Amino acid sequence: MGYYPNEVARSLYQKSSKMIGLLLPDISNPYFPLLAKGVEDYAQQNGYIVILGNVEDNADKEDMYVKFFSQYNISGVLSAASGKRKNNDRVPYVLLDRALEEENYSISTDDRLGGKLAGQAVLESRGKNIIVMAGPRHVSGANDRLSGALSVLNAAGASYRVFETETFQVDKAEETAQKLFNTFKSFDSVIASNDVFALAVMKEAIKRKHRIPEDIQIIGYDDMLFSRLMYPGLTTIAQPAYEVGFKGAKMLVDLIEKKVIIDKIVKLQPELIRRDSLR
Amino acid sequence: MGYYPNEVARSLYQKSSKMIGLLLPDISNPYFPLLAKGVEDYAQQNGYIVILGNVEDNADKEDMYVKFFSQYNISGVLSAASGKRKNNDRVPYVLLDRALEEENYSISTDDRLGGKLAGQAVLESRGKNIIVMAGPRHVSGANDRLSGALSVLNAAGASYRVFETETFQVDKAEETAQKLFNTFKSFDSVIASNDVFALAVMKEAIKRKHRIPEDIQIIGYDDMLFSRLMYPGLTTIAQPAYEVGFKGAKMLVDLIEKKVIIDKIVKLQPELIRRDSLR
Repeated sequence: MGYYPNEVARSLYQKSSKMIGLLLPDISNPYFPLLAKGVEDYAQQNGYIVILGNVEDNADKEDMYVKFFSQYNISGVLSAASGKRKNNDRVPYVLLDRALEEENYSISTDDRLGGKLAGQAVLESRGKNIIVMAGPRHVSGANDRLSGALSVLNAAGASYRVFETETFQVDKAEETAQKLFNTFKSFDSVIASNDVFALAVMKEAIKRKHRIPEDIQIIGYDDMLFSRLMYPGLTTIAQPAYEVGFKGAKMLVDLIEKKVIIDKIVKLQPELIRRDSLR
Repeated sequence: MGYYPNEVARSLYQKSSKMIGLLLPDISNPYFPLLAKGVEDYAQQNGYIVILGNVEDNADKEDMYVKFFSQYNISGVLSAASGKRKNNDRVPYVLLDRALEEENYSISTDDRLGGKLAGQAVLESRGKNIIVMAGPRHVSGANDRLSGALSVLNAAGASYRVFETETFQVDKAEETAQKLFNTFKSFDSVIASNDVFALAVMKEAIKRKHRIPEDIQIIGYDDMLFSRLMYPGLTTIAQPAYEVGFKGAKMLVDLIEKKVIIDKIVKLQPELIRRDSLR
């Protein structure tokens, strides 16, 4: 008739639970559901359940969740949120997707390498006059991508300009793409800050009768589902979103279960995915 | 110093918690994160936390979550999973996105109306030789869409053929689009089973040198983010995914808090979004 050991009673005495909290900045950004799927798969295989907190880079929401988590004696937290919050000493805490020096545990993609791969790919495709989109400066991964791309372009003596974008919010993508075309009169390559912005730049380019990749070539960052399905297919830097989530959950569970963690800061490798949007 | 009432102790005595479970078939399908965001927003505003369960139309995973939920004295369940499971009498249960007659509480989109809107839009755009993609038959919403579209096409005496697709899985989209073009030699319109499949059909059409919408026109279903950003912009039927989640969470919390529910089965209205993929 469905009697199970009551986890609430167990956690009351043990002062812990088999629950982990997952803080995300924006679950409607298509990168994060893949990450969440990785977290959920590892958790489920190991008898943990996942509490979802969508914090939208809003410090109040993040505070509220940390309070909730404390009330429920949660055993650990995975956070892909902005990372302004310091390590919470009461429970194990693993940062996803953003490695901050002062944090002890994190799993992220090597975004500096990703930026380099994007810069190299554009140079190899004979980019002469390049626009580099810079993501929001408060996002550490965005800075790393920019710095990786610029290091390659500088070393090659390439001609480029940096276009600052203030947000990764998807509802700003079209507006941002229009602004890019209105700001720069002549360019042949765009290193986009992510695939959503790459798609918006591609749309604006086609509307303005530029051929892709002949007139303007574009490279994205992330490798979203739609990047494969659009035409022309988007050349991009794949981030292992699922793996970040899966390995992050493993690290957190290892911490909760007091196993030895050898690498506290893990950087996964991004990968160039060649399709048709570079020459 | 951060002492909060211990919810674990409270829920032990009250035999309930302020936790709700959310079962999704596939969080990497871009429809569901929007729904999850709606659930999470309502829950958070009302002091509930959300436990995420990605069940992948896998009955074992669903069973496991129901067991977890019972162990944690969860107060209610929202389920967008396949719905094979009967109502769980022990806690309130609200179906999202799929209305089954034997279920008492559900919030979904009026998919039959959505199918009609798609059929009408294609007829108004002078579709003469129409392919209707049928989604998987075990998904009740997919049947409703098909039946809505066919009712309009039949009433108008239109010429159409039905193309059966076995899955909504996104990694099957390209293969399915190729199969569609290999199966049917001549057609001028496609009513796609969702936006992901519409995008795949569009890509295959452009690869085969068909102009959109002049040679082949396409309508999707869902209104995903990328549908606005692709070129040509996808005309589609918008489902209010966020609203399904938000209102579903409200209904569940009302049930948990023993408020009176007037409408047990709520159908939200889909909407035609006109862009450039229909003539």
